[in-house]
Amino acid sequence: MKIEWDRAAELLAAAQNLIIVTHVSPDGDAIGSLLGLMWVMRQLGRQVTPAVDGGVPPALRFLPGAEEVLAALGEVTPDLVIAVDCGDAGRMGQAGVAASASGAPLINLDHHASNTLFGTANLVDPATVSSTELILDWLPRLGGCLDTRIATCLLTGLVTDTLCFRTDSVTAAVLGKAQRLVEAGAPLSEITQRTLLTKPFADLRLWAETLHTVQMEEGVIWAAIDRQTRDRVQATDNGDAGLVSFLVTAEEAPVAAVFREKDDGRIEMGFRAKPGFDVGRVAVALGGGGHVLASGATIDGPLDVAIGRALPLLKQAAKGERAVG
Amino acid sequence: MKIEWDRAAELLAAAQNLIIVTHVSPDGDAIGSLLGLMWVMRQLGRQVTPAVDGGVPPALRFLPGAEEVLAALGEVTPDLVIAVDCGDAGRMGQAGVAASASGAPLINLDHHASNTLFGTANLVDPATVSSTELILDWLPRLGGCLDTRIATCLLTGLVTDTLCFRTDSVTAAVLGKAQRLVEAGAPLSEITQRTLLTKPFADLRLWAETLHTVQMEEGVIWAAIDRQTRDRVQATDNGDAGLVSFLVTAEEAPVAAVFREKDDGRIEMGFRAKPGFDVGRVAVALGGGGHVLASGATIDGPLDVAIGRALPLLKQAAKGERAVG
Repeated sequence: MKIEWDRAAELLAAAQNLIIVTHVSPDGDAIGSLLGLMWVMRQLGRQVTPAVDGGVPPALRFLPGAEEVLAALGEVTPDLVIAVDCGDAGRMGQAGVAASASGAPLINLDHHASNTLFGTANLVDPATVSSTELILDWLPRLGGCLDTRIATCLLTGLVTDTLCFRTDSVTAAVLGKAQRLVEAGAPLSEITQRTLLTKPFADLRLWAETLHTVQMEEGVIWAAIDRQTRDRVQATDNGDAGLVSFLVTAEEAPVAAVFREKDDGRIEMGFRAKPGFDVGRVAVALGGGGHVLASGATIDGPLDVAIGRALPLLKQAAKGERAVG
Repeated sequence: MKIEWDRAAELLAAAQNLIIVTHVSPDGDAIGSLLGLMWVMRQLGRQVTPAVDGGVPPALRFLPGAEEVLAALGEVTPDLVIAVDCGDAGRMGQAGVAASASGAPLINLDHHASNTLFGTANLVDPATVSSTELILDWLPRLGGCLDTRIATCLLTGLVTDTLCFRTDSVTAAVLGKAQRLVEAGAPLSEITQRTLLTKPFADLRLWAETLHTVQMEEGVIWAAIDRQTRDRVQATDNGDAGLVSFLVTAEEAPVAAVFREKDDGRIEMGFRAKPGFDVGRVAVALGGGGHVLASGATIDGPLDVAIGRALPLLKQAAKGERAVG
């Protein structure tokens, strides 16, 4: 944890033209943070260009300002770059490369414990459930105030990163913050419906096909999806989101994993643990990152080789070997 | 809505020995209300016997006091009966019959809009998301205060009836109440885990097998499960709970159905609709019942015949033909 409020305030005081970027394959917290902070900074009189590689996923286009987000950054000359919800500089993708090329200072705002503190100023607080919660904490220091647009964006990150208050990280204070955001006009039910409770039929078929491969061994439940199946059901890029959280509901399994063969043949892996267990270290051991209870990594395929590499580590994690290290 | 606080207070002032009962096939709100109110009344110096036909389901036995709940009532002589979360007197089952036989007055505490106001005093507020929320509202009038046991029981009803804050009944005030309950010591994450996020691996396999049969036609998404498959995966009786709600998340389908072949060869059908559509009438047409958005029926098999009978009605419902009737 490193929260350099003063250093960030200095950088911001000297800046008029901001670029805000977030991570590739953006989720609700990424886009919620990007747009929430955009509206805050505009309230404070700054000019803001929001960008994320590939643009805003369809399910998040209901957020106010989504239509302004650039899917690619050309040559830019900002006074300041703010990266939100990025654990390391590489997560910003091409947008980060373009922003860095400008030579502008960078504020790194994030809540991942694995954050590499890559900013000129770092606002990194792993105790927050989402990067949007951290923005809400920042708001009074900035002299900003909640409006419906800001509240809607910030609640979206809070809802998606906690699966609507279902994760272990949700405290009374988080519920109190959610209450404030709803009071400020954020439509909780609509956010939940759009981000967590609606999926294309093709994605539902992806779930069906993936679940059909489910196996359990020594406390690890896992499922895998290959390219052929993904192509056949024509699921969206993010179609298996939530599946690994679903698997970890199996009462016999403290640890869950989903393995997904990407178009380039590499294997994307998502891990989840029940409270008291640690899959963060498994991800790190495989060159990935994340949290104790939710992490991921991408390694070389083919599928069976990747599974063979990850499975022993996951089984160790399922034995609760977190306390040893 | 009929909230007779004063009449209830009079009945309570005259009573020392209470029986509290709730509905058959009790859910989290039923048991949470039963035990939450038991601890409140004991705090107020009353003797309390809690009862529910068949006892407390395993998933809810973590609640404080669950071991005291009687699974059957013999001859009893209470001063006062309190029925919680029961829409009508029949919902109390045999426990209600025994309690009524005593001739004691009855407080009917409930949040169902369809409540028949069967009490000597009625505390019925459909604006509350759960009966436990209504008990929390009652608490200051009673002069009671929250402790960890009471808060745990009350939060359980709030979590299960809102699927952990996912229903559109959840307001800022509800989040504020949840915050108070967590501050009083209620373990939100444990409650969510135990009531909503844990299923036996065998049930997860039932989901996998059932989802593998998923089809969609004319706005209706459905899946079916036969006896052989159920037997093979050895799922629990209630193993497909939640599956039809999962299906209705498909964005192209306003209507969802799950067909399950029972041991006697009859077909149990669960229906769900998105807001604005009506599967209640479909269930009624097939001899079943329920609500506009959630209903069910049981008809003769075999599976394909039952599906063939229900599907045209479901397709009509998916066209939004509710407005016609």
